[in-house]
Amino acid sequence: MNDTGVNDTGALETGAHETGAHDRVQVAIALFDRFTALLQRIPTIDVIFIGHRRGEVRTENAMLGITVDATFDEFPEPDVMVFPGGVGTRPLEHDERVLDWVRHAHRSTRWTTSVCTGSLVLGAAGLLAGLSATTHWSCYAELEAHGAVPTARRVVEHPDERIITAAGVSNGIDMALRLVELLVDRTAAQAAQLMIEYDPQPPFHSGSLAKADDTILTRVIEYARHRR
Amino acid sequence: MNDTGVNDTGALETGAHETGAHDRVQVAIALFDRFTALLQRIPTIDVIFIGHRRGEVRTENAMLGITVDATFDEFPEPDVMVFPGGVGTRPLEHDERVLDWVRHAHRSTRWTTSVCTGSLVLGAAGLLAGLSATTHWSCYAELEAHGAVPTARRVVEHPDERIITAAGVSNGIDMALRLVELLVDRTAAQAAQLMIEYDPQPPFHSGSLAKADDTILTRVIEYARHRR
Repeated sequence: MNDTGVNDTGALETGAHETGAHDRVQVAIALFDRFTALLQRIPTIDVIFIGHRRGEVRTENAMLGITVDATFDEFPEPDVMVFPGGVGTRPLEHDERVLDWVRHAHRSTRWTTSVCTGSLVLGAAGLLAGLSATTHWSCYAELEAHGAVPTARRVVEHPDERIITAAGVSNGIDMALRLVELLVDRTAAQAAQLMIEYDPQPPFHSGSLAKADDTILTRVIEYARHRR
Repeated sequence: MNDTGVNDTGALETGAHETGAHDRVQVAIALFDRFTALLQRIPTIDVIFIGHRRGEVRTENAMLGITVDATFDEFPEPDVMVFPGGVGTRPLEHDERVLDWVRHAHRSTRWTTSVCTGSLVLGAAGLLAGLSATTHWSCYAELEAHGAVPTARRVVEHPDERIITAAGVSNGIDMALRLVELLVDRTAAQAAQLMIEYDPQPPFHSGSLAKADDTILTRVIEYARHRR
């Protein structure tokens, strides 16, 4: 974040004022091998994908490679932290360099957020002790082991602690829209929703554990065995 | 696609039978600079990101780099084609190498699909002449210029022509679930929906042009000016 109103090229930053928004916001999305991704765009919000090393990381099925553009060390104090999920969060729960980064960054973030199993990393860093939080529906026990109170809601907000956790994968869209409202304003969030035409009409109704029957759950478990 | 039931390592392919699915399916997702992305995973479906050159391409806001893993020439006949959208589709509407690939691939695909402005590329290749189709809500006129009949639906299917077009960005999720049903079975699609916890509860109701008021539309237009 640049408090001088002058951007990296030395040009006067007028975007924020033109759009009726506040300061420019730097959102750091942590990347790691075997992550799951979702994203969003607003002119006053810069999204930077960070990780241990610059270069490519792969989603958990290895089919999508995306680029880490900066290291954790290079972005110690982002305005917003987004920790995505995926099986790749497991080793990070024991990765002291990542946990230290999370703890340090959280001291000065406007919002510290996670999607899916990203909350297990926030939990491992000690940020969720005693707080209600959410994660992928299959990982409530692991979240609880970090001292959090697992909650079957799509997005769980704690304004005082500046922490928001979103449930599995697609819930990141709902959280991203809410974040835009918090960081810019409601019209910006509604504009983002219109830009991505997010007027969902799922063809089926099996998007939560409560709505899915045993046949569906059995198939999910079968597919999970193929994941390695 | 491998009709012998033996995979590349020579091992017997049992996954498809275990999961009650059909043959393994190869889905080619076309990539290009300034695209917009979404994706999905099922054990019997291989997703390959293809483009003009192997290596990195960037989303339209340049904030996300993802990897092209194979060239159009290397995948002339995928089982499924997915053409995503983004401002990056504009030059492709005049790129004869891409249009030839689309025309050739479409002859043997099980499904030829697009998300957002990806339909403008299918249209430019002549695939949508006289067909109802959809695209991002801001691009109906361009779609119509390719001889298609723009339709304000989230997903438009033509089983006889094996063509499915989805509207802006997030509509790709609904289409992907429907594709899984078509390629595997309904339980697989419902399992995919549960895996990504797609039980959407948008925080606002501005996800379509019909639902958004003038204030929101004005903001979208303002943001579009920042896009370069």
